[in-house]
Amino acid sequence: MTITPEQQKEIEAARSNASQTLRPTVAKIEDILFNILPVLDHGFVRVIDYMGDDAAVIQAARVSYGRGTKKVSEDRGLIRYLMRHSHSTPFEMAEIKLHVKLPIFVARQWVRHRTASLNEYSARYSILDREFYIPETTQIAEQSKSNRQGRGNSVDREQAAQIIALLREDAERNYNHYAWMINEDERGDITDQNRSSLARELARINLTLSTYTQWYWKVNLHNLLHFLRLRADPHAQYEIRVYADEILKIVASWVPLTHEAFLDFRLNSVTLSAQAVDVLQAFVGGNRVSRETSGLSAREWEELLSRFPALKALPNP
Amino acid sequence: MTITPEQQKEIEAARSNASQTLRPTVAKIEDILFNILPVLDHGFVRVIDYMGDDAAVIQAARVSYGRGTKKVSEDRGLIRYLMRHSHSTPFEMAEIKLHVKLPIFVARQWVRHRTASLNEYSARYSILDREFYIPETTQIAEQSKSNRQGRGNSVDREQAAQIIALLREDAERNYNHYAWMINEDERGDITDQNRSSLARELARINLTLSTYTQWYWKVNLHNLLHFLRLRADPHAQYEIRVYADEILKIVASWVPLTHEAFLDFRLNSVTLSAQAVDVLQAFVGGNRVSRETSGLSAREWEELLSRFPALKALPNP
Amino acid sequence: MTITPEQQKEIEAARSNASQTLRPTVAKIEDILFNILPVLDHGFVRVIDYMGDDAAVIQAARVSYGRGTKKVSEDRGLIRYLMRHSHSTPFEMAEIKLHVKLPIFVARQWVRHRTASLNEYSARYSILDREFYIPETTQIAEQSKSNRQGRGNSVDREQAAQIIALLREDAERNYNHYAWMINEDERGDITDQNRSSLARELARINLTLSTYTQWYWKVNLHNLLHFLRLRADPHAQYEIRVYADEILKIVASWVPLTHEAFLDFRLNSVTLSAQAVDVLQAFVGGNRVSRETSGLSAREWEELLSRFPALKALPNP
Amino acid sequence: MTITPEQQKEIEAARSNASQTLRPTVAKIEDILFNILPVLDHGFVRVIDYMGDDAAVIQAARVSYGRGTKKVSEDRGLIRYLMRHSHSTPFEMAEIKLHVKLPIFVARQWVRHRTASLNEYSARYSILDREFYIPETTQIAEQSKSNRQGRGNSVDREQAAQIIALLREDAERNYNHYAWMINEDERGDITDQNRSSLARELARINLTLSTYTQWYWKVNLHNLLHFLRLRADPHAQYEIRVYADEILKIVASWVPLTHEAFLDFRLNSVTLSAQAVDVLQAFVGGNRVSRETSGLSAREWEELLSRFPALKALPNP
Repeated sequence: MTITPEQQKEIEAARSNASQTLRPTVAKIEDILFNILPVLDHGFVRVIDYMGDDAAVIQAARVSYGRGTKKVSEDRGLIRYLMRHSHSTPFEMAEIKLHVKLPIFVARQWVRHRTASLNEYSARYSILDREFYIPETTQIAEQSKSNRQGRGNSVDREQAAQIIALLREDAERNYNHYAWMINEDERGDITDQNRSSLARELARINLTLSTYTQWYWKVNLHNLLHFLRLRADPHAQYEIRVYADEILKIVASWVPLTHEAFLDFRLNSVTLSAQAVDVLQAFVGGNRVSRETSGLSAREWEELLSRFPALKALPNP
Repeated sequence: MTITPEQQKEIEAARSNASQTLRPTVAKIEDILFNILPVLDHGFVRVIDYMGDDAAVIQAARVSYGRGTKKVSEDRGLIRYLMRHSHSTPFEMAEIKLHVKLPIFVARQWVRHRTASLNEYSARYSILDREFYIPETTQIAEQSKSNRQGRGNSVDREQAAQIIALLREDAERNYNHYAWMINEDERGDITDQNRSSLARELARINLTLSTYTQWYWKVNLHNLLHFLRLRADPHAQYEIRVYADEILKIVASWVPLTHEAFLDFRLNSVTLSAQAVDVLQAFVGGNRVSRETSGLSAREWEELLSRFPALKALPNP
Repeated sequence: MTITPEQQKEIEAARSNASQTLRPTVAKIEDILFNILPVLDHGFVRVIDYMGDDAAVIQAARVSYGRGTKKVSEDRGLIRYLMRHSHSTPFEMAEIKLHVKLPIFVARQWVRHRTASLNEYSARYSILDREFYIPETTQIAEQSKSNRQGRGNSVDREQAAQIIALLREDAERNYNHYAWMINEDERGDITDQNRSSLARELARINLTLSTYTQWYWKVNLHNLLHFLRLRADPHAQYEIRVYADEILKIVASWVPLTHEAFLDFRLNSVTLSAQAVDVLQAFVGGNRVSRETSGLSAREWEELLSRFPALKALPNP
Repeated sequence: MTITPEQQKEIEAARSNASQTLRPTVAKIEDILFNILPVLDHGFVRVIDYMGDDAAVIQAARVSYGRGTKKVSEDRGLIRYLMRHSHSTPFEMAEIKLHVKLPIFVARQWVRHRTASLNEYSARYSILDREFYIPETTQIAEQSKSNRQGRGNSVDREQAAQIIALLREDAERNYNHYAWMINEDERGDITDQNRSSLARELARINLTLSTYTQWYWKVNLHNLLHFLRLRADPHAQYEIRVYADEILKIVASWVPLTHEAFLDFRLNSVTLSAQAVDVLQAFVGGNRVSRETSGLSAREWEELLSRFPALKALPNP
């Protein structure tokens, strides 16, 4: 990840500029505000602004005149109650704004979350940085056999090295041709006075999906948790999951009670289908059920057993 | 529920006007299209239009050139897979449009579902019908002690009769005053040439929340199912639940595979918190857990036992 | 507008609790934070929280590492450029949270703006305040002849007094019956031990649409301006317009450059149809056009003349 | 644009399958349903389904029991009134579903319109087609000097040929390496049994932004018109504008009254700022205004003159 001295100076200037406010503040977020939190080889997440905290959720749920909080145990209980019963609107009352640098193929997944505000760096107007995502060797894996849209076993080291070399060479060559076509260096100076400068909006189409872009992303806590539920999940592609993991840590600092409730009632919860409830109910009552009579598909059955390994130890019907 | 002869004629005219189409059609919905399906004392639901069917969900999931469906068992499997893994976007590819007549207090709950299109009958422009929701005696119930936002025991018949009388008298008196203020009868003719006609947008503020309004409501299948999950739930207020129940029947006729998957993976599913999973896992493995050591709140514990009654039969730890 | 001493104390407590922050602050908003800004007879608007300022719009438009602002004249120019060309996403980067008390019929119009977060005081759970909107005599007006959904001439004083009396009596009687049905006073104490307490969710249906409710409303600057464009407009109903006017003043304090651009390019702008452009173009070129040959409807013609009164002085063709 | 025989057969099968319906149908759309409407070198738009027509807009605006339409002139008048006064909700009552094939860089602009439903072909799950957008020579243009995010003069033929060759070679080479990495041909058969098949989700990052993708896109008429207003605009990038132009033709066939109103009050309308109104008002009244005293920026002044060329002919003040 490359930060220019100018960018570093801008960040420091922003961090040196404190004011008084009557709004709720969160010390742990103030501590990291504007700082670069690195993700992948050239990416980052930066917290630019935030509104509210755990108490803001409570305040809105109570439509209160003041801060609305009571004892910590009551506040925690209310937040857990709201999360458990999918009373989602109070969680919309806190908001966060992030500056994110990320590869374009990750951006394409990210943007499918429509309920957020977004300003992306414009490649019609500006020149993109010479930065591409190149996976580490440990990430070079085969198409999964079981999960038809994910990764399976590692690729052997030699072939992995070939793949990495290809990804790097192609990204760099295409960027070099991009720079040649726009006829500008990275500061925007004309390279060759005798050539035309191709419109940036056209030249960029030569870049690979591994090229980095960046954006400002602003989202409320409810929609952020929904994003995290899908993207911090093991089924999400690794390259977006590492962003979700980094943001989940920010959430833990920002709204610890909500974060705890989110882990318990969402991220680490298990949803049982009507059929799975019957199976489990039978087991608890001492009646063994076979996969065939359960009404579950092979995959659901497997998932149930992986969540409740004790079931496997029980004698078959 | 009062339908004027003109309205009846309009419905019949619409039903007598068939055309050819290449679009997918659903016979069971064509059968009821435009018809009035009564709800509560004066309300109704009417299906006005629909787009797509179960196959449209599959077609979009496959981004196919044709209808995209294969064997029924494969189609069912794919729809269940999508529902189970919260792949919600294919369910946005089917759409339904309803004409609904409903009391204003129900409308106020309904409209909190923001992801739908809505055209409400304008009481600034037009005169509202003289129709109010008056609950049946069986619905006159006390504030619940356990669920602080619902109903508990029935009120005794005598007091219930008093309540019903009050609701009716107040609604009617207020409507009469509304009619007097706008100085018009229900056909829009001036009642008294020597008086002014108060602006309708002001006169309507005298009406009770039990007064009926009506609207066109258009929503995609994904958002409709979300609405039904919250409003066909026993915790929803009875008066909106009966609308949800009626719409759920329409969904069963329209998209039977999606309806089945929705019942199994949403409406009749159980979500266990991280703690509840541990408790159940312990039980299955033969280890009894007490409420106190479970990490569950009293209410969560009770809910778990009500879902898995066999747990109660087990000896206490 | 009635504020209890407890509520007043809560507000003062919130205002006495300052912290340090690195986030942008706006002194003029800090000055009024949490304070009650009265609207109508019992309503109010309170600013509860805000995120960002004019500079936040610029920062996002530039996807900058620091504050992103340059000279004031350049910043103003950029904001005007963004507003003029409907580049709306940077205006989504500022956010405000309001606590609003408002009559239910106003709430019903307000909530049609779907792109905001909302927590309303629950009348299923809590008891509503004994407060109703009663219009002032000057507001008692006839249904407009020209604008079929608005107000026209004033009603004569005697009839206006009758109307006001009716509105007040009906609202109060219905509230009294509501209180009798729930069998509780405003502190939630049982009134009569020998009667049942009707569920609040049912009793409330007896209340008039003039009854006050309250909510927390959180919205980004772009969507707020859209709300203000529609609701600060002379065609909006007076009772919601006064809220919009009050909020517009808040916007002027909060984001003065955006406010100015909004007035110039939205609120005080004129959109000419293709036909109206032709008419005006002809006039400027010295060719007089008649209404009949203009392609404009009578109403559009009238509107054009009211915007450009100098046209009337020109000789007819 | 390449369509396989299987795809062609699927389209024909869908077109041969007519049914009866009571829903409104639009003959001109039935005529083109499912057919491929080519855009750019390999892209297309296909209409997959539609709900409603011009009458559906009227029906919803009237909240009617039947079709709701009256005389054609009244219907046209109402639709123009709704469009002119930004009464947008009735236009949400019609819906269309398109299958679109488009280059990824166009998809990235398109997806910024959040209020639509979208299912994209998954490159984690499936293999992308070997198709890239290569601009025609006439499209190879310089970065614009005046509009800093668009195209200006053409590039000379020789350099244009070089650019086209580069774009083609890089796209093809990168696709070849993609195919080598996933170790599969386009039918999904393994190419080399002795190599691993890299996970598709990783291999795709090597592809250029000119590679084609495809998706199902479903949107209501109001949001579609908003999309068209921004993307059929001369400031939009050429490659998305040609899609917007094609869709605009579909809209003309589907909802001709709405289309006409959209052209008159949106696409071909002119919005004058408060200052521009003053300038024009002065001109009409015979008072000449200079750019310096107008309050308009140089660019606004230029735009005003280009809209009202007769102003230029007037003597300077």
